[in-house]
Amino acid sequence: MSLRKPVGPLRATVAVGVLLPCGDTRLVFDFDDLARRMRNFTEARDWGRFHDPKSLTLALVGEVGELAELLQWVRPEDQAAVVGTQPLYGRLAEEMADVLLYLLCLADVVGVDLAQAAIDKLRINEERFPPDEHRSIAPGKA
Amino acid sequence: MSLRKPVGPLRATVAVGVLLPCGDTRLVFDFDDLARRMRNFTEARDWGRFHDPKSLTLALVGEVGELAELLQWVRPEDQAAVVGTQPLYGRLAEEMADVLLYLLCLADVVGVDLAQAAIDKLRINEERFPPDEHRSIAPGKA
Amino acid sequence: MSLRKPVGPLRATVAVGVLLPCGDTRLVFDFDDLARRMRNFTEARDWGRFHDPKSLTLALVGEVGELAELLQWVRPEDQAAVVGTQPLYGRLAEEMADVLLYLLCLADVVGVDLAQAAIDKLRINEERFPPDEHRSIAPGKA
Amino acid sequence: MSLRKPVGPLRATVAVGVLLPCGDTRLVFDFDDLARRMRNFTEARDWGRFHDPKSLTLALVGEVGELAELLQWVRPEDQAAVVGTQPLYGRLAEEMADVLLYLLCLADVVGVDLAQAAIDKLRINEERFPPDEHRSIAPGKA
Repeated sequence: MSLRKPVGPLRATVAVGVLLPCGDTRLVFDFDDLARRMRNFTEARDWGRFHDPKSLTLALVGEVGELAELLQWVRPEDQAAVVGTQPLYGRLAEEMADVLLYLLCLADVVGVDLAQAAIDKLRINEERFPPDEHRSIAPGKA
Repeated sequence: MSLRKPVGPLRATVAVGVLLPCGDTRLVFDFDDLARRMRNFTEARDWGRFHDPKSLTLALVGEVGELAELLQWVRPEDQAAVVGTQPLYGRLAEEMADVLLYLLCLADVVGVDLAQAAIDKLRINEERFPPDEHRSIAPGKA
Repeated sequence: MSLRKPVGPLRATVAVGVLLPCGDTRLVFDFDDLARRMRNFTEARDWGRFHDPKSLTLALVGEVGELAELLQWVRPEDQAAVVGTQPLYGRLAEEMADVLLYLLCLADVVGVDLAQAAIDKLRINEERFPPDEHRSIAPGKA
Repeated sequence: MSLRKPVGPLRATVAVGVLLPCGDTRLVFDFDDLARRMRNFTEARDWGRFHDPKSLTLALVGEVGELAELLQWVRPEDQAAVVGTQPLYGRLAEEMADVLLYLLCLADVVGVDLAQAAIDKLRINEERFPPDEHRSIAPGKA
C-alpha cells in the first residue's frame, strides 16, 4: 500500500536489543523496531493488500472486543485479585498484544509515528488538566 | 491501585533520548518510559482510583470509537488519498495516541509488559501462519 | 445499495400505533416499522451511498464508544444510583438509540431480519445454557 | 438488580404473535416482548447478578467485536456480493442478534425504553439534518 512512509537508514539501525554506550547492554523495546517487525510479518505474507485503514480499524475493534469479553463478567470487587492470576493474566496479555500490533499496523499504513503522537498527546493532556484543578476528579467531569 | 507492579531500578534508568553506541545519538521511544510518563500523569492527578481494568477497557473502547468515527464515511477508494491529508491525518494521530495511552495504562494496572507481550504474540503468529501457506490469503480464511 | 431486500406489502401495513383486538388501543413498537423509518430517513438524504456493511459497522463502533465513554468513570458501586439520574440517564438513552438505529441500518443493508435473528439466537442460547446447569454462573465459565 | 423498572400489566399483555383488529392475525415483533424474553432468560439462570451497566457494555463491545471480525478482511468491492452468501450471512445475522440482545438487556437494566428512545432520536436527526441541505453528503461533514 502506497500509504507507507519509507523508513530511513537511521531508524533501520535500531534493534530491540541494543548495546548501550560502550558496553552497557540492556533491552530497549523500541516502537519503531516493533512496527518494523510487524511490517515484515505482513509483507512476508503479502497481507498488506487487506490493510486499508478501515479494515485495520475493524481488526482493532475485534481485538478490543476479545479483551472486553475476558473482563465482562469479572465482578468489580474481584478485579484486582483475578487479573493477575492465570489463565486470565496470560489471555489479557495476549489480547493487549493483539491490540498493540494492529494499532502499530494502522499507524504504519496511515504514516503516523505512534510513539511521537502519544508523547505529543500526553503533553496536551498535561496542560489541559492541571493537577491542582483535577485532582481526584474523573477526567471530563471537572 | 495495588495491581501495579513496582518498576525496578534498571527500568528507571532508561530515557527517551539515549546515547547509542559510542557517539551516535538518536531518539529511542521506549515503551517503559512512555508507560512511566503515563503513570506519572495519572498519579499527579490521583486518577488511579478510577483505573480498574474494566473501566480502563471502557475508556479504550471510547477512544477506538472516536477513531472509527473519523474513518466511517471515508469512501473505500478514497482512503489512501485522504488519510494523509489534514485535518484527518492529525485527528487520526491523536486518536491512535489516545488508544495507545489507555492501553499502556491498562497494561500497567494489570501488570503486563506490553512490549514483551507484543513480541511474544508476533512470534506465535509467525509460527501459526507460515508465509508459504498463507501468502495473499486473509488471516482466518486459510 | 442493491443489498436491500424488498419490503413486501404485508410488512408495509404495520404501523407503530396499532389498534389491538377490538378496541384496546396501545402502542406496539415494531422492528420492521422502525427499520423502515430509518431507511426512509437515509433515502431522503441519499446517504445509502455511504452505507456499505464495513462503514456501518464502524459507525456502530463509534456509537458503542460514546456509550462506553458515558460509563467509563462511573464507580462500580455508584452505577445503580447514577444511571437513572439526569443528565446521564438521557444521554445513555440517546447513545443506546444510536446503536440500535445503526444496527437496524446494517441489518437492512445485509438483508437480515433482526427481530427474527434475535428470537432465533435466544432460542439457541436457551438450549445451550440449561438453567439448572448454569444458575448463578457467568456464561462462558460454566 | 434494583435498576429494573417494573413492567406494568398493560405491557405484559403484548405477545409476539398478536391478533390484530378483530380477526387479522399477523406477527408483530415487539421490542417490549423481546426485552421480556431476554429478561426471563436472564432470571431463569440468575445471571442478573452479573448485569450491571458497565459489564453489559463490555459484553456489547465483545459482540460488536465479533461482528467486526467477520467483516474486517472482506474487500470493499466484494461486500455487496458476499454478505448475502453463506456462511457469512448466517454468522452476521447471529452476531447482530447478540448485539441486539445485550442492548435490550442494558436498556432493561438502565430502565430505558429502547424503541421510544430510537424514535425520539430519529426525530431529532430528522430536524438536525434537513434533506435538502444534507443530500449526498456524509453526516458530520456538511
